[in-house]
Amino acid sequence: MSLIVQKYGGTSVGTPERIRNVAKRILETQQAGNQVVAVVSAMAGVTNNLIGLADAVTGEGQATEREMDVLLATGEQTTIALTAMALNAMGSKAVSLTGAQAGIETDGFHTKARISNISPAGVHELLDDGNIVILAGFQGKTPDGKITTLGRGGSDLTAIAMAAAIDADLCQILTDVDGVYTCDPRVVPEAKKLDEISYDELLEMASSGTKVMQSRSVEFAKKFGVPFEVRSSLNNNPGTLVKEETMSMESVVIRGVSLERDQAKVTITGVEDHPGTAGKIFGAVAETNLLVDMIVQNVSKTGITDISFTVHKDDVVKAEAALKPILPELGENATMEATDGIAKLSVVGIGMRSHSGVAAEMFAALSKAGVNIEMISTSEIKITVTVSEDQIDAAAKAAHEAFGLSEA
Amino acid sequence: MSLIVQKYGGTSVGTPERIRNVAKRILETQQAGNQVVAVVSAMAGVTNNLIGLADAVTGEGQATEREMDVLLATGEQTTIALTAMALNAMGSKAVSLTGAQAGIETDGFHTKARISNISPAGVHELLDDGNIVILAGFQGKTPDGKITTLGRGGSDLTAIAMAAAIDADLCQILTDVDGVYTCDPRVVPEAKKLDEISYDELLEMASSGTKVMQSRSVEFAKKFGVPFEVRSSLNNNPGTLVKEETMSMESVVIRGVSLERDQAKVTITGVEDHPGTAGKIFGAVAETNLLVDMIVQNVSKTGITDISFTVHKDDVVKAEAALKPILPELGENATMEATDGIAKLSVVGIGMRSHSGVAAEMFAALSKAGVNIEMISTSEIKITVTVSEDQIDAAAKAAHEAFGLSEA
Repeated sequence: MSLIVQKYGGTSVGTPERIRNVAKRILETQQAGNQVVAVVSAMAGVTNNLIGLADAVTGEGQATEREMDVLLATGEQTTIALTAMALNAMGSKAVSLTGAQAGIETDGFHTKARISNISPAGVHELLDDGNIVILAGFQGKTPDGKITTLGRGGSDLTAIAMAAAIDADLCQILTDVDGVYTCDPRVVPEAKKLDEISYDELLEMASSGTKVMQSRSVEFAKKFGVPFEVRSSLNNNPGTLVKEETMSMESVVIRGVSLERDQAKVTITGVEDHPGTAGKIFGAVAETNLLVDMIVQNVSKTGITDISFTVHKDDVVKAEAALKPILPELGENATMEATDGIAKLSVVGIGMRSHSGVAAEMFAALSKAGVNIEMISTSEIKITVTVSEDQIDAAAKAAHEAFGLSEA
Repeated sequence: MSLIVQKYGGTSVGTPERIRNVAKRILETQQAGNQVVAVVSAMAGVTNNLIGLADAVTGEGQATEREMDVLLATGEQTTIALTAMALNAMGSKAVSLTGAQAGIETDGFHTKARISNISPAGVHELLDDGNIVILAGFQGKTPDGKITTLGRGGSDLTAIAMAAAIDADLCQILTDVDGVYTCDPRVVPEAKKLDEISYDELLEMASSGTKVMQSRSVEFAKKFGVPFEVRSSLNNNPGTLVKEETMSMESVVIRGVSLERDQAKVTITGVEDHPGTAGKIFGAVAETNLLVDMIVQNVSKTGITDISFTVHKDDVVKAEAALKPILPELGENATMEATDGIAKLSVVGIGMRSHSGVAAEMFAALSKAGVNIEMISTSEIKITVTVSEDQIDAAAKAAHEAFGLSEA
């Protein structure tokens, strides 16, 4: 008998009929001889409705965070009750638990709390009594009993944290895709579903445009060594196992190709090259809460340098507004220029560490495809370039092909 | 500084705008120099929507009661969050508490739990820190942490029980009427709002048609000696104080007149008068869960008697179906007859105990108004008669007038 944690997202439980389908799937998992804890999200649309109510009462975005958590937590509480009663109606023993009831303790940072402790005795007891446990994702309580929520991707986090706490044999994240692919199949039709991927690879792919899970949940899984499987809630195909890297994983040089569109590049030229300049620039941008991604600075020979960075194209105006006042401090003749219409392409793989020449191979492939490279940035297991947005599909295909990812 | 518990029903908090109005009223109560605990219900319509969801998932009425409670409790949780954040938006310190968070413990009878204990330390602490406490009505938890709900009228019960637990100076039930009237003002325009009424009088009036509160909450208030005020949430008029009877109350013979329409009378004639017959009849009716009200049996002289009782007219068919099979056991020639189109009129007052001739006075007044009396039933502080439904308004006016209730 295995102990399995499953997580179903808001779309999977979006209607009464879908809740019945999820209940059926949970029951089948139990009937196959397993103990099951199923983590469910709020029904699709419910959270937005609740936010709309709060805005109507207080003015947009004015609600206090403590009360926002009390409000939002009702979304998952509704789903757990409906899912458990659906299972009961099928003749199964199932009980619902809120985050607080399941012993999920967090710190007090409302709307983005971090899990600090899980006391799983009650969950074990219910499982040992033959119950399926339906657990509210996304929520917990502080040690003194306040209701908290975990922020974006919180239900994934609940599943992974509970899997760690109860020492589950398997944690399944059920979603609307079949798993993690070597590249977005809409761009590269030859893209293959991966059987396995390391935490670090998924993290790098997530941060460079592959939307499967929030980085935060993957980081948590890595930290506590919880392997999990990303698979579809709509079919029974095996998904992608995400786990600590193994020796055999290193033999694959590149695991996948990520792409991210709608990027813009901001370049500041004529920057005087002395300590503190970069800090000044990115401090000013950070104050506007913008997410800056790639940062490239060329080596300075003349005491004057250029610094470029990418942001989402919607954030260009904000970034320029933040930088304009400090331009004179950066250099006598410092100027700023923004270009949009660019996209990012990344190749990711832990095998890169032990294989040389990966960058050269990638650049050659892009060159052969007639793609011009603008910026380059590398990490230990990732190489990222920016290209013109209208060349990103060709670039992705070329890289995917060059690293043999289309082969079975 | 007084400690006040207020209760607002589902209509009072039915829209974001109304929630803001309620918040304003709560804040004014605090600013007048009081500590305030406000108990709120689910927004009007929300509970029915939740029941609809449950029906859609499980089939009508098939949901397990444990999960129904988890589901329904989200209704009040939504309101407490919205009300507290409305107060926060007005610059006030306010925090929400679910029933469980407020230490309201109940037994385990899901959907109709009874409050067994309240641990109000947390509420006191919040109040002493200058907070307004917004408390979810209708819900609690079992000692082992299961979510329960209290059934119909549960939010009134929460308010009264919490008022008792924290030794409040005043408990206000805010509703859509100005208080308790001597009679329904739609029937008797001269009806006056009562300044005060005893628990027992309100209980008798509630059980005979005056819809202000569920008897259960009044009984609870009586048991624990919690005086409360029924008043309007729409204006600042003083309401009606409901409390233990005082000496001075006895000087008022009749406090009010209640009426109840849509009644039917079932009469069984030819009943053999020996022990156990009545038990047989009402046992059979009770098995169908019908609410039987007045029961009248005439003294038997011949060994054969008639037994009549009233039920709501919608329940006549069920009552007849329950009795038909046992008719032969009741008497050789027992027959059954049902009449609808009747109504009940009650006069209620603790002064009746020390005043004689009240019944005679009532019957004379009805006679003078040309109203024919069918059945008569009395308790220590109530006289009830049934009359033809088309005479009930005239009967109510006559009784109201006869006992001087229109006078200031």
